[in-house]
Amino acid sequence: GCARLTQQVPLESARSTKHGVHRGMSSVTIPPPACMLRPLEAPFRYLFGPGPSNVPPRILAAGGRPIIGHMHSEMFGIMNDIKKGIQYAFQTSNNMTLAMSGSGHTAMECAVFNIVEPGESVLVAINGIWGERVAEIAERMGAKVHTLFKTPGGHFTNAEIEQALAKHKPVLFFLAHGESSSGLVHPVDGVGDICHKYNCLLLVDSVASLGAAPLLMDQQNIDILYTGSQKALNAPPGTAPISFSERACHKMFNRKTKPVSYLLDMTHLSNYWGNDGKPERKYHHTGPVSGFFALRESLAILAEMGLENSWSHHTEVAEYLWKGLEDLGLKLFIKDKDLRLPSVTTIAIPEGYDWKELLAYIMKHHQIEFTGGLGPSVGMVLRIGLMGYNCNKANAAMALAALEDALKQCRKSKA
Amino acid sequence: GCARLTQQVPLESARSTKHGVHRGMSSVTIPPPACMLRPLEAPFRYLFGPGPSNVPPRILAAGGRPIIGHMHSEMFGIMNDIKKGIQYAFQTSNNMTLAMSGSGHTAMECAVFNIVEPGESVLVAINGIWGERVAEIAERMGAKVHTLFKTPGGHFTNAEIEQALAKHKPVLFFLAHGESSSGLVHPVDGVGDICHKYNCLLLVDSVASLGAAPLLMDQQNIDILYTGSQKALNAPPGTAPISFSERACHKMFNRKTKPVSYLLDMTHLSNYWGNDGKPERKYHHTGPVSGFFALRESLAILAEMGLENSWSHHTEVAEYLWKGLEDLGLKLFIKDKDLRLPSVTTIAIPEGYDWKELLAYIMKHHQIEFTGGLGPSVGMVLRIGLMGYNCNKANAAMALAALEDALKQCRKSKA
Repeated sequence: GCARLTQQVPLESARSTKHGVHRGMSSVTIPPPACMLRPLEAPFRYLFGPGPSNVPPRILAAGGRPIIGHMHSEMFGIMNDIKKGIQYAFQTSNNMTLAMSGSGHTAMECAVFNIVEPGESVLVAINGIWGERVAEIAERMGAKVHTLFKTPGGHFTNAEIEQALAKHKPVLFFLAHGESSSGLVHPVDGVGDICHKYNCLLLVDSVASLGAAPLLMDQQNIDILYTGSQKALNAPPGTAPISFSERACHKMFNRKTKPVSYLLDMTHLSNYWGNDGKPERKYHHTGPVSGFFALRESLAILAEMGLENSWSHHTEVAEYLWKGLEDLGLKLFIKDKDLRLPSVTTIAIPEGYDWKELLAYIMKHHQIEFTGGLGPSVGMVLRIGLMGYNCNKANAAMALAALEDALKQCRKSKA
Repeated sequence: GCARLTQQVPLESARSTKHGVHRGMSSVTIPPPACMLRPLEAPFRYLFGPGPSNVPPRILAAGGRPIIGHMHSEMFGIMNDIKKGIQYAFQTSNNMTLAMSGSGHTAMECAVFNIVEPGESVLVAINGIWGERVAEIAERMGAKVHTLFKTPGGHFTNAEIEQALAKHKPVLFFLAHGESSSGLVHPVDGVGDICHKYNCLLLVDSVASLGAAPLLMDQQNIDILYTGSQKALNAPPGTAPISFSERACHKMFNRKTKPVSYLLDMTHLSNYWGNDGKPERKYHHTGPVSGFFALRESLAILAEMGLENSWSHHTEVAEYLWKGLEDLGLKLFIKDKDLRLPSVTTIAIPEGYDWKELLAYIMKHHQIEFTGGLGPSVGMVLRIGLMGYNCNKANAAMALAALEDALKQCRKSKA
């Protein structure tokens, strides 16, 4: 807790005015809290969980640069660069490409709020937490929500998806490409075509997979794709790239009702990002200038490295990690290698161990963050994330050594 | 524009798998954009508009520190510090005090979405852009919106407010304390009491005024108060302090319907911030870790300086600026000194000048940002903001010199 200072703050006498405005300097009764007079403390941690990842110094430095105004022409130039960087990362030529001022959840709500009108049907593939979230968001804004369900680790065949599309006739189908709660990378090939056959748009979450696992927005016929800044992109959390196909734009810009959120209304955001072709960009909200600086730098690193190199590098390090985990006698939660997310590896909790104790031991003795499951996978898995800057064999070896140590020290302590 | 590299990116051959997952490194057709291979450029600017303000090096450094996880115990400690810092800045002992992961608009939507249920009445005082925004937000979420209206620069008497409350029986009344589009600081004394007499909650926007003009949440019986990080607090944009009274909590935690936004649902946000008394904090969204580091530092600076000193300092510098402007023959837009916002000064556009030309000249020749009006005040005013770190007489003198130069160079050029 943060004790309040006991010192008395001097109070001047009140000075009332004809308007009753408190111009007087009186009436402050709550003194400055003592904790705010101490320096910020943030210990170094190896962020080997499902994100945020450690931010490389180059990106931290970009985010720590003196800011400019959110409406300055140079800022618009930086936003244009970000747009190009996202187009590359997503492999899309969509004009309607931008970064949300917020986390992946903001992009998720933006997609659902703008595409779907109240009363319309939405189909959500739930095989972990992200489908649960989208279903919750769609329900709240008044959609009719239908679900396809698998337990964590499961995935859907195209035949299962087609059957559900034919039955429910949704305007939007959601699929998580990177299901970080279970460690699954979901097949996407052909899904967009099936959706379009049923006049449905395909929304894909690539928060945990972007930059780590191959994904080709245009070629795979994805209509709305979003990701987060804090995973393989390595920027601090707080911005979220998103892109809409022309088909998605047609739906969202021809709706009868306004989206429930003003802040996330794409008619305004597309103007802010200069995507609507209008000569004047009007003030909408104040974008996170430092966050955009950092995001631009993270996209620049990806462009320099090359997407294909980034994909193959993540796969190589993941395979090294997987082998090391199996050598420790651990069982990977996703049996099929081709369905394993390269960025976030899930391990079945070893018998005779308390997963919380393992995580606490590793944090305390190795300054390494691994995490447990999330949502429906809580108590089922441990998760190790090695993304972007953190993705290399030295870190994988460090993670394995820490885990080996913990397995020795924590064995059957709760059994 | 950002030309794409013409160089050919090597494409490896496709390798299809039994699941159709694109494990192969092929199919990348969009090459890295050339602009992303150039360094980030952001020129130094004096941000003397209505915000964002220049961020002092100390806050930039805090925001540029290596991050930790959003759910680490040390992060929760930092969030606890932020909570105490906001309680001090707002002069409230409200437990339900936190920072939104977003700009002031996020706080605005959070307040309306959580407090109001569809079909309930809301009364909005509109005397500039902020009331317009709240009315728009409340309409979208299904509220019955009533308005009290004044042209920019006008303010409402308590009698006018009471009359409207009696007539419309709203559950929420919105008032902007700092109307940055017109430069007005609105009287708040007594408004909370009147609202409570009519069983209405008082929502106050202090984005432009917090730290610059006296405001005492608890003593002035304000039920929901929010601000932004990027004004007098001097942090980068992207976080937004907000606080709810017990009365507001009672309303929002006893509603029949869920708020339309999952991301802004206070039942989840209050758990994330440790305000709901539950032992476990569950994952909700990934907060902007770097933004919280910076916000903590900005609140620490305010705590060190002292609220009363900050208020009197802003008033002193504003009065110096006002006198200088009048000495240049300019007319201040808000006639009554007691109703002038100390952080953002509005000047009636001098006759014979094109306001856009004045602003462009000052930006080009002095690297200083002033701005025009916003929303209903566009074309009516020029705005000069001197907030927090930027608030001192040397900067005021620089602003005056730049304006004097511009008035000489741009005179009657369009007349």
